[in-house]
Amino acid sequence: MTEERFVVAIGFINGKFVPIDQKVLPIDERGHQFGDGVYEVVKVYQSKPFMLDEHLQRLEKSATAIQLKLNYTKQELKDIISEGIEISELSEADAEVYLQVTRGIAQRFHLFPDVPSSTTMTIRPARSISESFRNNGVPVMLMDDERWENCYIKSLNLLPNILAKHAATSSGCYEAILVKNGYVTEGSSTNVFAIKEGVLYTIPLSKKILHGITRHTVLELARKLDIPLKEESMTPEFLKAADEAFITSTTAEVLPISSVDGQEIGSGKPGPITLKLQQSYCHLYETRAKEIESK
Amino acid sequence: MTEERFVVAIGFINGKFVPIDQKVLPIDERGHQFGDGVYEVVKVYQSKPFMLDEHLQRLEKSATAIQLKLNYTKQELKDIISEGIEISELSEADAEVYLQVTRGIAQRFHLFPDVPSSTTMTIRPARSISESFRNNGVPVMLMDDERWENCYIKSLNLLPNILAKHAATSSGCYEAILVKNGYVTEGSSTNVFAIKEGVLYTIPLSKKILHGITRHTVLELARKLDIPLKEESMTPEFLKAADEAFITSTTAEVLPISSVDGQEIGSGKPGPITLKLQQSYCHLYETRAKEIESK
Repeated sequence: MTEERFVVAIGFINGKFVPIDQKVLPIDERGHQFGDGVYEVVKVYQSKPFMLDEHLQRLEKSATAIQLKLNYTKQELKDIISEGIEISELSEADAEVYLQVTRGIAQRFHLFPDVPSSTTMTIRPARSISESFRNNGVPVMLMDDERWENCYIKSLNLLPNILAKHAATSSGCYEAILVKNGYVTEGSSTNVFAIKEGVLYTIPLSKKILHGITRHTVLELARKLDIPLKEESMTPEFLKAADEAFITSTTAEVLPISSVDGQEIGSGKPGPITLKLQQSYCHLYETRAKEIESK
Repeated sequence: MTEERFVVAIGFINGKFVPIDQKVLPIDERGHQFGDGVYEVVKVYQSKPFMLDEHLQRLEKSATAIQLKLNYTKQELKDIISEGIEISELSEADAEVYLQVTRGIAQRFHLFPDVPSSTTMTIRPARSISESFRNNGVPVMLMDDERWENCYIKSLNLLPNILAKHAATSSGCYEAILVKNGYVTEGSSTNVFAIKEGVLYTIPLSKKILHGITRHTVLELARKLDIPLKEESMTPEFLKAADEAFITSTTAEVLPISSVDGQEIGSGKPGPITLKLQQSYCHLYETRAKEIESK
């Protein structure tokens, strides 16, 4: 790989680090024309990618689900990410790795082309979550889930998610919580949790939702903290009547929900179980970063 | 616009003609990362774009549906396409114009960025439809329609369509005919028609199907030819029991269906109404091209 010095952010395409805004793709590219690819977002705390194995494993699962052959092994991707963090000069800051694999560069035609897949990556400073959101929670709104049937695949077909997120923020909300056939599925880019009478509820895994890594981590933390938990389908009414509720994602971490469609959740302030899980999650990535450091 | 001489095919990005394989896009591009855009494919017969007004009108409708502001007027797009056909040196051949507009180039983030949209285009020789397919028909297979709820928007989120088409061709079929809630919606890149006892049936327009321009043209031709027609929902059983059936699209034109899931349609050979509509469609674009020529 070529190696130059870049400041603050970096791009990567098929074996080469490049300035993040360099033009590296032609018009006829499967991501650009079909959304024919999969991706992951990895949060980097103090230069340590958090849950990297889990993210790369999910990337493989998504790729398999769309019959896409990755052109790097997991170990190669790990090495590329490490190298990227180093040469991006972001090693002291929290960063976000965006990694995308598409079915490659080929003349536009629906059928799979006989070309290698194409891997691109960006590494840039992490967007920080507003302290106010973290401490006070965020308002969300309910919307119809109009997406396709296979949202467990982390694919590039994100138009419905974008439109839902835009509608939510246009109404002064932080997130759209999607509802399909009378049940909550997930947020436009988050998983959903509710707490009722001391029990933590979340939507069970299916093809209809992303198998969130933060979701999984929070469930593990809940088990360690002896918080009773149930993976059960959830109606919008159940969510609205919850004592506490929160959303999770790699970038949002554990974010309390203050209201749903204008209706306050609990007292309207984050409840004790939400805060406990939020703090445990922060503690986990801080500890992990130190553990890796000391190795 | 810059103008250079190119042979056989050409690309276009935001005001500039470029070699078709030139790298013109950075990683952080809304089409590449979200499929956040819309497109059209226009067939060019003897240097005359067919149904261009209809295609540009639909592009506008799709853009409006996803709240995307086009950066060219319809007249400007017409002029760009004309110029492209001329300098691509395809003026004597049949060609295909692929025109795509995305929400532009911006750091990856779900919310709409405050940047201009991005228009790209390719013009290349038209893929020719096999004479055997045209004359003998094509086998199709039924598959679950797993797509989102707004397939009337001609968006770049085409992964389910690609996967369906790939599954169909892997089974020796030409097209996947999609079925939702017990009814045929459309093919992965075509609309569907059936003929039973002299009546032409097609699926009524809704949010669940593309409002095909070839579909519309064929319905107009049927009216002129006094073929009785009904826009009605169609079960897979009805399609299989049809006397004749065919699919339509800009590139496939009118293509007879020979069998559905291995079951022959009618005699297994294209029927008289299908052939009449196929010929009328060819006659229409040939006549149009001559009309424009003589103006």
